[in-house]
Amino acid sequence: SSNIRLAVIPGDGIGTEVVAEGLKVLDAVGVKVESTHYDLGAARYHATGETLPDSVLAELRGFDAILLGAVGDPSVPPGVLERDLLLRLRFELDHYVNLRPVKLFPGVETPLGKARPEDIDMIVVREGTEGPYAGAGGVLRKGTPHEIATQDSVNTAHGVERVVRYAFEKAAGRERRHLTLVHKTNVLTFAGDLWSRTVKRVAEEYPQVTTDYCHVDAASMFFVSQPQRFDVIVTDNLFGDIITDIGAAIAGGIGLSASGNVNPDRTAPSMFEPVHGSAPDIAGQGKADPSATILSVAMLLDHIGQAEAAARVEQAVADDLVERAGAWAARTTREIGDDIAARVAG
Amino acid sequence: SSNIRLAVIPGDGIGTEVVAEGLKVLDAVGVKVESTHYDLGAARYHATGETLPDSVLAELRGFDAILLGAVGDPSVPPGVLERDLLLRLRFELDHYVNLRPVKLFPGVETPLGKARPEDIDMIVVREGTEGPYAGAGGVLRKGTPHEIATQDSVNTAHGVERVVRYAFEKAAGRERRHLTLVHKTNVLTFAGDLWSRTVKRVAEEYPQVTTDYCHVDAASMFFVSQPQRFDVIVTDNLFGDIITDIGAAIAGGIGLSASGNVNPDRTAPSMFEPVHGSAPDIAGQGKADPSATILSVAMLLDHIGQAEAAARVEQAVADDLVERAGAWAARTTREIGDDIAARVAG
Ligand SMILES: CC(C)[C@H](C(=O)O)[C@@H](O)C(=O)O
Ligand SMILES: CC(C)[C@H](C(=O)O)[C@@H](O)C(=O)O
Repeated sequence: SSNIRLAVIPGDGIGTEVVAEGLKVLDAVGVKVESTHYDLGAARYHATGETLPDSVLAELRGFDAILLGAVGDPSVPPGVLERDLLLRLRFELDHYVNLRPVKLFPGVETPLGKARPEDIDMIVVREGTEGPYAGAGGVLRKGTPHEIATQDSVNTAHGVERVVRYAFEKAAGRERRHLTLVHKTNVLTFAGDLWSRTVKRVAEEYPQVTTDYCHVDAASMFFVSQPQRFDVIVTDNLFGDIITDIGAAIAGGIGLSASGNVNPDRTAPSMFEPVHGSAPDIAGQGKADPSATILSVAMLLDHIGQAEAAARVEQAVADDLVERAGAWAARTTREIGDDIAARVAG
Repeated sequence: SSNIRLAVIPGDGIGTEVVAEGLKVLDAVGVKVESTHYDLGAARYHATGETLPDSVLAELRGFDAILLGAVGDPSVPPGVLERDLLLRLRFELDHYVNLRPVKLFPGVETPLGKARPEDIDMIVVREGTEGPYAGAGGVLRKGTPHEIATQDSVNTAHGVERVVRYAFEKAAGRERRHLTLVHKTNVLTFAGDLWSRTVKRVAEEYPQVTTDYCHVDAASMFFVSQPQRFDVIVTDNLFGDIITDIGAAIAGGIGLSASGNVNPDRTAPSMFEPVHGSAPDIAGQGKADPSATILSVAMLLDHIGQAEAAARVEQAVADDLVERAGAWAARTTREIGDDIAARVAG
């Protein structure tokens, strides 16, 4: 088969460090990749004022997949890179599935004293292109005592149905075949009703998948008290943002959380990134854990049809984590990358 | 002083059971209370179709405080009692502060293996009368492939400033004097900007209080991984709903989480309620823990100027929890109420 064309956006802070290790592992697994780097992020913003030029966006559309490290820096006004670069990519490339596994690997310490790996093994299917992330809303009489600021969550039958279908497919392919809708139907009645009706309707096509419903507040509690309740979760953009960070916490931290911004229709490339940010406080020190990026590379491989290579990368991370549990010294970002790459190659 | 006039809404399921114990303790503490019961909830809804008649609402306005158990029953369409009774009370009585302590009492087991009581001791000041709870939004082309459902979060300078002021006052009165704004300013830019500017402006009047900011997703993670980061939190209605349930989970469960729906201007009575719901699955079995309600009674006492009695009730619960840790058998709802009442009286 021909080479995989990969766009790489290392971004800011530890983004560049972890992406280097991700690429190292990708190389080691033997999949032929031709990668092109893009310097999007804080440096480019400062140099040119650009976040995501239209010409770059157009180029990105031509790749098979995108690997992103992390964007954001204290020197840039808060939210600019997040919205005009990261979220813009998700929206423009129609990444309507934000796929976030929450999985406790053996050997990894969790803050939940009694949780075992078999208790924490779920996939959150977060909607990625609408909801409160649509950017709708506005402000009236700004800065006065009569200011009103609104934020509008936009939910469409089209947008909800396609992500719900994806979640049912995912659930149908898993052992437990259980799908939970997480929302807040008792308060957000209009959107909640659309989500509930959609799940109910699509469920008829998947008799083998059991379904239930959980309010987002209760789900957040259950992530801590009874994570074993969940197998596949489907939820809106904002609720997904929140619960996947709780997921990261219970599964041993943000250093291990991978994600895929997936366009299942393949009308544009999907983008894979660690859930963590650019962590300017530890940037340049070799302290960042590249495992989340390497696991994101595994998701990327799976997406481009390299299931065997994907499994090999995930297994190498899993093995590394078991070994890490018994180790007496912390390794650098590069050392972890080297070790995982060696496992993948060997 | 004259009697305290208390409206009691036991509600549904375990609501009636736990409220009975709350009243028992209130009686034992020796504060003179004249209480009037209201049968709002599922039974009244089925009998008359009423959730909160205007005449009852008008009567409720005349009380010094309200004690509520829990409302909701599977026999009632989801959300009806929550919205038309519970949320309507919060909005009509202008409960703009939803006060929720998150505190790990000594002796209580937390799912966080390493957390000690001194690590989990915060107060969440949740806005109670606007945000995504305003009920704004709508649906177009319902049931068709072109359906659009919107939910609008409404945030006003008036609404944000008053709750932020309250939070600064609370923080100023605590040992650590630290206030964290929790929001999602990088995505919900209009509302986030109003919240951020308001905190910044009011902070100038409280030089003794340190402040910081945390995105809701990161805060949710930190509740699990580093709860000691937080002292007082101020946040919007929906984020507060979610993080206080994580708070309940880390502090030993929903059976211990108290809350106050407070109208600090005293233009209407405040309402105190356990954070838990009506739990129809365990109703009538004497299995519910009345501690959350009893702690809510302590908050009620504090609100009506009975600080000494409030402290006595809270201490009795704390002592009971220590003793409970060493006990070999579970007690019934009533037995726990009896034991705490005896401590309060003794
Ligand atoms: C950086 C931010 C805009 C982003 C989000 O809210 O989606 C992040 O928190 C995430 O989860 O990927
Ligand atoms: C029952 C529901 C409407 C309510 C809320 O969302 O505020 C509850 O979850 C709470 O936290 O008191």
